[in-house]
Amino acid sequence: MKTLNVDLGERSYPIYIGSGLLAKTGSHLAQHGVSSKSPIMVITDDQIAPYYLQIVKDSLEQAGYKVVSAVVQSGETSKSLTVYTEMMTLAIEGGLDRSSAILALGGGVVGDLAGFVAATYMRGIRFVQIPTTILAHDSSVGGKVAVNHPLAKNIIGAFHQPEFVLYDVDTLKTLPPREVSAGLAEMLKHGLIQDEEFAYWCEEHANKLLSLDKDSLVYGLLRGCSIKADIVSQDERENGIRATLNLGHTIGHAIEAIAGYGKFLHGEAISIGMVGAAQLGVLRGADPVLYTTTRRMLESLNLPTSLPADMSTDDILAAMMHDKKFREGLMVFIIPTKIGEVVVANDVRVQDVRDVIDGLKERGVNA
Amino acid sequence: MKTLNVDLGERSYPIYIGSGLLAKTGSHLAQHGVSSKSPIMVITDDQIAPYYLQIVKDSLEQAGYKVVSAVVQSGETSKSLTVYTEMMTLAIEGGLDRSSAILALGGGVVGDLAGFVAATYMRGIRFVQIPTTILAHDSSVGGKVAVNHPLAKNIIGAFHQPEFVLYDVDTLKTLPPREVSAGLAEMLKHGLIQDEEFAYWCEEHANKLLSLDKDSLVYGLLRGCSIKADIVSQDERENGIRATLNLGHTIGHAIEAIAGYGKFLHGEAISIGMVGAAQLGVLRGADPVLYTTTRRMLESLNLPTSLPADMSTDDILAAMMHDKKFREGLMVFIIPTKIGEVVVANDVRVQDVRDVIDGLKERGVNA
Repeated sequence: MKTLNVDLGERSYPIYIGSGLLAKTGSHLAQHGVSSKSPIMVITDDQIAPYYLQIVKDSLEQAGYKVVSAVVQSGETSKSLTVYTEMMTLAIEGGLDRSSAILALGGGVVGDLAGFVAATYMRGIRFVQIPTTILAHDSSVGGKVAVNHPLAKNIIGAFHQPEFVLYDVDTLKTLPPREVSAGLAEMLKHGLIQDEEFAYWCEEHANKLLSLDKDSLVYGLLRGCSIKADIVSQDERENGIRATLNLGHTIGHAIEAIAGYGKFLHGEAISIGMVGAAQLGVLRGADPVLYTTTRRMLESLNLPTSLPADMSTDDILAAMMHDKKFREGLMVFIIPTKIGEVVVANDVRVQDVRDVIDGLKERGVNA
Repeated sequence: MKTLNVDLGERSYPIYIGSGLLAKTGSHLAQHGVSSKSPIMVITDDQIAPYYLQIVKDSLEQAGYKVVSAVVQSGETSKSLTVYTEMMTLAIEGGLDRSSAILALGGGVVGDLAGFVAATYMRGIRFVQIPTTILAHDSSVGGKVAVNHPLAKNIIGAFHQPEFVLYDVDTLKTLPPREVSAGLAEMLKHGLIQDEEFAYWCEEHANKLLSLDKDSLVYGLLRGCSIKADIVSQDERENGIRATLNLGHTIGHAIEAIAGYGKFLHGEAISIGMVGAAQLGVLRGADPVLYTTTRRMLESLNLPTSLPADMSTDDILAAMMHDKKFREGLMVFIIPTKIGEVVVANDVRVQDVRDVIDGLKERGVNA
């Protein structure tokens, strides 16, 4: 087991990464001072529950904890105020008190939902992330938790740091290949933002990562978490540098919204968004090799790098206007200058974005 | 205008108390660095809106702000997830961004609701309290914001400190006399907790306070806010001394829940709760004069100090078991030892609480 400390002053916490960790959930909770007098709530989804819920429950019960479990539907639709309210009802009925903890067993959706419940139940109780996807290596660092509103994604949320993150790489073996690739998109993203060497490492180890080689996964997840933790610890509340983590997200979120949540996986959408951002970088003077390299790296991880030809550029632009990455009416775009380096630009012209989106349309692939 | 600074490190904020302040809302917002490029949302209720909403809107618009206003129904029922969701919809439709601010114009209900919207919209935006009740001198200090769940009051919430509090005592003249008294219950509570001299000052100035004498109000509100701010700044997240502010609340919340929210005003319920807490104090060895003095002080402010005879002691006890002021299964009770001094007790016997509640029943008054 490897440990990475996320340095956030009094809100610092460790990430444990390794094999066979699920069965030690109870002892980790006890080591972190969570009393067995207070009930523990485990929130998971119906894809994950059959594989791993019992292991976690057994481990907790062996350590003397009373467990309340909640299984939500897999997928983005569970990040709703309706499901949030249901979780609150279960927490109250289960007798959770201020010393209780809520455990998120699953991917980003479960982590965001459970984290927002923990952030707001009794004005905030303890929260533990147990990620079961590669993508969640990103969402489990940084404390951003949220649910969606029908009009906007992640618009209702909080910053709530976990007590600890328990990352059992054994759980990744049940991931469908598309989700493996989508998760690796965020891993590569961390390299593209500020670590050229790690970006090339991801490309070189693409086949090992895609086949879930354990050593490669532990290294890649640790490095990805570490880069993100470094950025978050400089700017916990996203007033500055943290925005660079949104590379690919402005276009990516718009693609997800237009296609309907769930058609593109989040990692797939931001893969396309990162190609778009690289192209914007080239339009603003970067070496064109930035674009071809970015695209090649993403394709090595079996990620999509172009848009369906029938997706409307106008619709995508309109969706961006609803995106919360606007500040005082100006568009904030994260733009690469080279592999491993990005800048935050506030002055991107709509016409350039339109040209880039047009350029992302597939040339005959889906025609 | 008097200014009181609430010292919470980087989350410190000022409370401005005086006359004619509503008309200066816009300039205060500008002085606090809120940009006029971002829309401002004002949340108020249908009792307050006819008197004061236009004054606040005019002041904001004169200062160049675009204003989105939301008028909710007066009363505790607006502290629901349903109304919360409606506020989120209005905020999104109104184009609020991360630089926007949400203003709570009203009493505790509006402050709690608007504060929780501000705490969770885009993971937290700026929040301004504009109290229009005496009771809100309490709720506007300390950053506790929340909505209710059908199963429990204030169970869903956050800690979110305001940017500033603008307390215009002119708005108090529209308060019904019952609400004046209920608000003064929290003012006196601050004296009972840690300022004997102020508790006696409240009793001596009862008639001036009840008749809304401006100088007495400004002094009493400042002193009440100041005591609360002092306690909150020692313990922002309620891990210790802050719990003393819950004097009278364990019994009080149970009374509110049993009677149905709205039958007793919050201040009335905690008035009865403070009499009960004083009686518990006497049971645990305090001088019996504590009980008679507490009761006399509350009665000087026209507050109820006994329960209807037909209210079931068992129901009240059962409601307390749902109250969130339990920690690891133990009951936390704030118990006075003398006027101006309280202790936090974890070991209160149920039988003693039962006796005290029985003792609070009216002796023939409603018979």
